[in-house]
Amino acid sequence: MALITLLTDFGTRDYYVAAVKGTLLRLAPGAMVVDLNHEVPPGAIATGAFLLGAAAPTFPSGTIHLAVVDPGVGSDRRILAVATPAALFVGPDNGLLTPALDDPQARVYGVDRPDLYLPSPGHTFHGRDRFAPVTAALARGEDPAALGARIDDPVRLAAPPPERHDRELRGRVIHIDHYGNLVTDIPSAWVDRPLERAEVGEGTGQTALRRASHYGAMGPGEPTVVPGSLGTEELSLPGESLAAKWRITIGVPVRMHLR
Amino acid sequence: MALITLLTDFGTRDYYVAAVKGTLLRLAPGAMVVDLNHEVPPGAIATGAFLLGAAAPTFPSGTIHLAVVDPGVGSDRRILAVATPAALFVGPDNGLLTPALDDPQARVYGVDRPDLYLPSPGHTFHGRDRFAPVTAALARGEDPAALGARIDDPVRLAAPPPERHDRELRGRVIHIDHYGNLVTDIPSAWVDRPLERAEVGEGTGQTALRRASHYGAMGPGEPTVVPGSLGTEELSLPGESLAAKWRITIGVPVRMHLR
Amino acid sequence: MALITLLTDFGTRDYYVAAVKGTLLRLAPGAMVVDLNHEVPPGAIATGAFLLGAAAPTFPSGTIHLAVVDPGVGSDRRILAVATPAALFVGPDNGLLTPALDDPQARVYGVDRPDLYLPSPGHTFHGRDRFAPVTAALARGEDPAALGARIDDPVRLAAPPPERHDRELRGRVIHIDHYGNLVTDIPSAWVDRPLERAEVGEGTGQTALRRASHYGAMGPGEPTVVPGSLGTEELSLPGESLAAKWRITIGVPVRMHLR
Repeated sequence: MALITLLTDFGTRDYYVAAVKGTLLRLAPGAMVVDLNHEVPPGAIATGAFLLGAAAPTFPSGTIHLAVVDPGVGSDRRILAVATPAALFVGPDNGLLTPALDDPQARVYGVDRPDLYLPSPGHTFHGRDRFAPVTAALARGEDPAALGARIDDPVRLAAPPPERHDRELRGRVIHIDHYGNLVTDIPSAWVDRPLERAEVGEGTGQTALRRASHYGAMGPGEPTVVPGSLGTEELSLPGESLAAKWRITIGVPVRMHLR
Repeated sequence: MALITLLTDFGTRDYYVAAVKGTLLRLAPGAMVVDLNHEVPPGAIATGAFLLGAAAPTFPSGTIHLAVVDPGVGSDRRILAVATPAALFVGPDNGLLTPALDDPQARVYGVDRPDLYLPSPGHTFHGRDRFAPVTAALARGEDPAALGARIDDPVRLAAPPPERHDRELRGRVIHIDHYGNLVTDIPSAWVDRPLERAEVGEGTGQTALRRASHYGAMGPGEPTVVPGSLGTEELSLPGESLAAKWRITIGVPVRMHLR
Repeated sequence: MALITLLTDFGTRDYYVAAVKGTLLRLAPGAMVVDLNHEVPPGAIATGAFLLGAAAPTFPSGTIHLAVVDPGVGSDRRILAVATPAALFVGPDNGLLTPALDDPQARVYGVDRPDLYLPSPGHTFHGRDRFAPVTAALARGEDPAALGARIDDPVRLAAPPPERHDRELRGRVIHIDHYGNLVTDIPSAWVDRPLERAEVGEGTGQTALRRASHYGAMGPGEPTVVPGSLGTEELSLPGESLAAKWRITIGVPVRMHLR
């Protein structure tokens, strides 16, 4: 039985998610569809890519991940199918599939199968009319190589890598989670000395002076650095949203100074 | 394996959705339950009917759709089971099942099977105590005709149909989607000449002067008409919520003037 | 096929729920995972316990309920596995599993199986790295007794029981539902005479003078007592949120005076 995950920016108040699921279940009988996330902010490709990259590796080998954050729907942007040793991915060619493309063994196909697409009243809902039937074809066992020609120029998100300068580690806030924790791109493995301080933003005075192994070990009311669940450093405030308190947005620079 | 969809106004912060699913899975072992939507505004029957009508046709033949937006719970309003050639529907007799009733081949049954209903501590949760066991009976293969007598007077939502007057098309906003797009009931097939202008509301000055084939072809900041995903016209604003900007609510009149 | 439910305070905007589901599906192939709820307010153990207690009994016998509202993640709080005649439960030892522990036949195990835990980059996501693999082991058929030693001192939530004084019934608001109804802990079975009045709060003047069998029988605009869906009394306001109107929070005292 094929396992399909679904990541969109469709929200949960509309018929869009259900229409994609219905189409998948109609065209790939017996498949199981699991929500990855539907609350990506509208058009927020980088957030979608972050969530996909964080969740996809937990799923069983052979899972098919359908991702639709697609502000270019209806334009001539391509549809991609990406095969990695672990999984298959379908989505628009706008950077959303960057976590799959980053796999050195990824094979990337530009989907060109109008025979699969559904007759559509408009050009605003490729999730239902194109992405779902292409994904269902994979779920039925179709070879990704049969979906279109291999391409070598898919769109990737370009993120500046974190930097390691002896006792100063530089990175960015790459995600703000449900609890208001600030997830950074600074690898926890780089933190090989005690923390002196971590600064968030430039000249803001927003500084954490402590590092703890887990949330429960933090002092009350004290912003604290913790090794996060993706192998990078997080900043957190016990029982509160640090993002709300400091008014942090994604992309803000973070500097960790070690002793 | 029976496939059941679930549409409610129960929201996602409560135990109500889980209790209906648990009951379905307990009484129809092996069924698969898929969320259609749970964020219908409380008691908003018309919104529920819209979402049901938009999503149900995408599901496989034989799917059972359970819909519970039921402000009359506990009163003597009837419970309906509706069989169409494509699917089965269960819900309260308050107009919510209008999309199924509109099928000329629909057979409509007034459910009268107290033997199926669960012993209930009160009369406030028929979703769990009556709708779920009736739906589970269908999922186990029971004939809808065995649920009750056929009736010919189910409650239907009465929506004024859109009007076509040569170069003027008149309709209404029937849905506001997650992105703030305004979905109208004006068929895209009626738009057989170039758009002159589309007016939303009466004398509001809220006017779109352009029509585009998809969102990506719109000019920035310019309200635009697009053929939508249900075969009717939509009004949209690139990257913004047009509904919020114009403060539109469902039911507002829309007039499209063609050249 | 094992059925697993999932209750968390992870919210729906993050990758956390998907990562737990992916891990469960990877480690317990063929299991079905059903959402119980993910919008428990962060760290709100009592709300999580309420939702678990209300929904779990509807599920089939043998269902495995995984619950993660775990502000102590990473600390030395224990992980519990609880076996009742009806179901299995996995969660942190912080009171969240009280509804299972309240079963007189419950067997409670302190989980101690580091061999099952996943290698983890940090100590912030035991949902994925510890709870999910332990739950998957149960789904694969492992005996709960093999997870750890029996313990007799699990943490329980201590709620003051409702009181019955002849014609006065005293309790509390234990839940505010999606519609703004106030769910109390006063058993409907205690209401053996007509209602004189129900007071919410101390000296607030917030009083309901009517009791009705269901929402539809209420007078418009009039706060009303109804027998709720869990066997206890609720206070409700037709078509409005009584909780918002009266600014009620969980724990507020309720007194019902009978004639």
